[in-house]
Amino acid sequence: MAEKKLGGAGLRGQSAGSTALCTVGQSGTGLTYCGYDISELAEHATFEEVAYLLFNGELPDAGELSGYKERLKAFRGLPEPLKICLEQIPADAHPMDVLRTGTSVLGNLETEKNFGEQQDVADRLLGALPSMLLYWYHFSHNGERIETEVGDDSIAGHFLTMLHGKEPSADHRRCLDVSLILYAEHEFNASTFTARVCASTLSDMHSCVTGAIGSLRGPLHGGANEAAMDMIEQFSSVEEAVEGVKGMLARKDKIMGFGHAIYRESDPRNAIIKQWSKKLGAEVGDRVLYPVSEAIEQLMWDEKKLFCNADFFHASAYNFMGIPTKLFTPIFVCSRVSGWTAHVMEQRANNRIIRPSADYVGAEPRSWIPLEDR
Amino acid sequence: MAEKKLGGAGLRGQSAGSTALCTVGQSGTGLTYCGYDISELAEHATFEEVAYLLFNGELPDAGELSGYKERLKAFRGLPEPLKICLEQIPADAHPMDVLRTGTSVLGNLETEKNFGEQQDVADRLLGALPSMLLYWYHFSHNGERIETEVGDDSIAGHFLTMLHGKEPSADHRRCLDVSLILYAEHEFNASTFTARVCASTLSDMHSCVTGAIGSLRGPLHGGANEAAMDMIEQFSSVEEAVEGVKGMLARKDKIMGFGHAIYRESDPRNAIIKQWSKKLGAEVGDRVLYPVSEAIEQLMWDEKKLFCNADFFHASAYNFMGIPTKLFTPIFVCSRVSGWTAHVMEQRANNRIIRPSADYVGAEPRSWIPLEDR
Ligand SMILES: CC(C)(COP(=O)(O)OP(=O)(O)OC[C@H]1O[C@@H](n2cnc3c(N)ncnc32)[C@H](O)[C@@H]1OP(=O)(O)O)[C@@H](O)C(=O)NCCC(=O)NCCS
Ligand SMILES: CC(C)(COP(=O)(O)OP(=O)(O)OC[C@H]1O[C@@H](n2cnc3c(N)ncnc32)[C@H](O)[C@@H]1OP(=O)(O)O)[C@@H](O)C(=O)NCCC(=O)NCCS
Repeated sequence: MAEKKLGGAGLRGQSAGSTALCTVGQSGTGLTYCGYDISELAEHATFEEVAYLLFNGELPDAGELSGYKERLKAFRGLPEPLKICLEQIPADAHPMDVLRTGTSVLGNLETEKNFGEQQDVADRLLGALPSMLLYWYHFSHNGERIETEVGDDSIAGHFLTMLHGKEPSADHRRCLDVSLILYAEHEFNASTFTARVCASTLSDMHSCVTGAIGSLRGPLHGGANEAAMDMIEQFSSVEEAVEGVKGMLARKDKIMGFGHAIYRESDPRNAIIKQWSKKLGAEVGDRVLYPVSEAIEQLMWDEKKLFCNADFFHASAYNFMGIPTKLFTPIFVCSRVSGWTAHVMEQRANNRIIRPSADYVGAEPRSWIPLEDR
Repeated sequence: MAEKKLGGAGLRGQSAGSTALCTVGQSGTGLTYCGYDISELAEHATFEEVAYLLFNGELPDAGELSGYKERLKAFRGLPEPLKICLEQIPADAHPMDVLRTGTSVLGNLETEKNFGEQQDVADRLLGALPSMLLYWYHFSHNGERIETEVGDDSIAGHFLTMLHGKEPSADHRRCLDVSLILYAEHEFNASTFTARVCASTLSDMHSCVTGAIGSLRGPLHGGANEAAMDMIEQFSSVEEAVEGVKGMLARKDKIMGFGHAIYRESDPRNAIIKQWSKKLGAEVGDRVLYPVSEAIEQLMWDEKKLFCNADFFHASAYNFMGIPTKLFTPIFVCSRVSGWTAHVMEQRANNRIIRPSADYVGAEPRSWIPLEDR
């Protein structure tokens, strides 16, 4: 796949270090994790297998995989002081702020004492982030203190079981599993880069992840899946959608879920999640969300040569599983925490503090003026 | 002042954007805020005046300054749910983790709804961070729920009053005020850069500051003042110190509080805080900490041509004011939050998402292997 012409602001196209974890916009579909193409991983792997791959550089054998799944499962419980903190957060808070806070609180209760503990912290967060999110969600929205040690041994199953209070269908579990695979890792995107800058000061793992969550929250990054849903939902027909998006383009609005900093022609994750959206939409008898989404995709390509990124069809796919819109970006966290923590480990293994320079565009040197003379 | 030869890893010497806030390693002593040399600011200004300068680009007149101080003073109270969260954090937690958490919790309770609120959030954090820190400190260490709306109208006075339960001496207040000025802003250092990367996704102010605190925590960055203190304290005489540091150099240990990513010959903040350390040391009749610090400074220059950065003499200066070592880096936060938030505002005013590339050093493209064949 050809690379996009890069340059200018935002460090676009400038190398900020090296990685063995991922390629974006290079061979094959453009996206590989440790050499494996994303389409093969989405077809055959489970998310836990992918997390293991990112941490170890190789796929696990059957014994390693089942051991790893058991290990992650054992990390689902939440300490009491963390629950008390989560209970202080109101229902109208941004769930990304809840995860940012929960991770930070956990860093006080289970501090990473030295880098020898880094894998433990990573696995603990993989196990506990869905619990934090849904504990807060049910408590703040209906006063219920849910049990978090429930569900099968997959993170996808755990999440959906806590959310809906019952085991998910096989299709829903697999769709979320695939979604977690697609979101797991993406080279030096803004949130991962945040984690690496933090790691480069030799700070602790919880600080790195807390910072990354804050960056993922932004609408130009992970927040795009929620923003896409808010837009799609406004339209009750294809005609309305085409009309509406044309108007947005005329007003020079950014259309969330389109475009990418690196990919030029397509985002390889889109075809995969789009297929799942279509399948789940058919199952629930949808006649609006999916057709509207497809129409917007076509229009954006025709009018602007802009393509859907990973976030766009995630919106409808999640919606068909009954996931509330405000939990979309937090699910991204539950997955990407694997990539973030793997990058922190990589940064630590060959570190120099990340400290760029700036072009100065401010006032010339000038002398102090005493308060009374101003 | 000549610039250091820069290059290589860690984006050293590469421009990651522009700023009107600060120069590092350029004209004069090398460090200016909005055109004013750090030595003049440390001589004449108050910290609140410097914060105003960073936010507005110009020094305040008398009316503006007193208005701004009143405004900051009004932000010292802590909401009840935040206090409850702080009370969950044990006494042996890292106080940087406490501030990271407190800021994150505040983001849930007083979320920045749109960028029109950014100055309010910045000022609120300037007013509330010392309160969070010392509320937690007294509660976790001696079960006391302190009143945070106390002290004079300076942040330095507020901090020392809460810490010691009484108004500070004029010298102590002024020394801390100068320290806050020295730490307020420093261009694209790692924590500020973290805040800007986060801001570039258009995330909220609390996320940016939470991330920055996590980066500042690292021993290669803000954590250096505590690490320097731990080292200095080991030595009970100049002879022991010289012996000890020689041994550390022979073992290729990093000596905390020395060296800098940009400055080549000296850190202009060092001479200023060193003088204050000398003065406060004389007042308390110190015969060890200051002479030991000076001897290490000389030795490091003679042996390695490495000079003290801002952090080294901060250690003894803070110690002479009776500040516990573990609160050193958190004080840096209470100051640098001014620079961080000013940078976030600057990033937002002319934004492109910060998304660098990476050099791929991983496995070649390879095909999926089914679990049973591994
Ligand atoms: C992803 C994104 C941040 C990449 O930023 P970038 O690298 O700076 O973008 P580009 O350099 O490719 O932009 C080229 C042009 O296309 C426009 N453009 C890019 N994405 C657009 C979108 N989603 N809607 C409308 N216009 C868009 C840009 O405004 C720019 O126009 P200009 O040259 O007139 O300023 C950007 O495409 C975007 O904001 N997308 C929407 C948010 C989103 O979906 N984020 C999730 C990413 S996985
Ligand atoms: C500040 C710091 C992170 C800058 O990092 P940097 O830009 O990568 O450092 P440099 O490129 O100037 O390092 C040049 C050489 O001096 C050495 N050096 C730098 N600071 C040193 C120190 N404090 N003690 C011992 N050696 C040091 C480096 O190890 C390097 O040696 P090498 O070439 O053999 O690897 C680094 O000086 C440091 O770690 N200092 C101690 C921590 C500290 O005080 N931080 C607060 C900064 S305000």
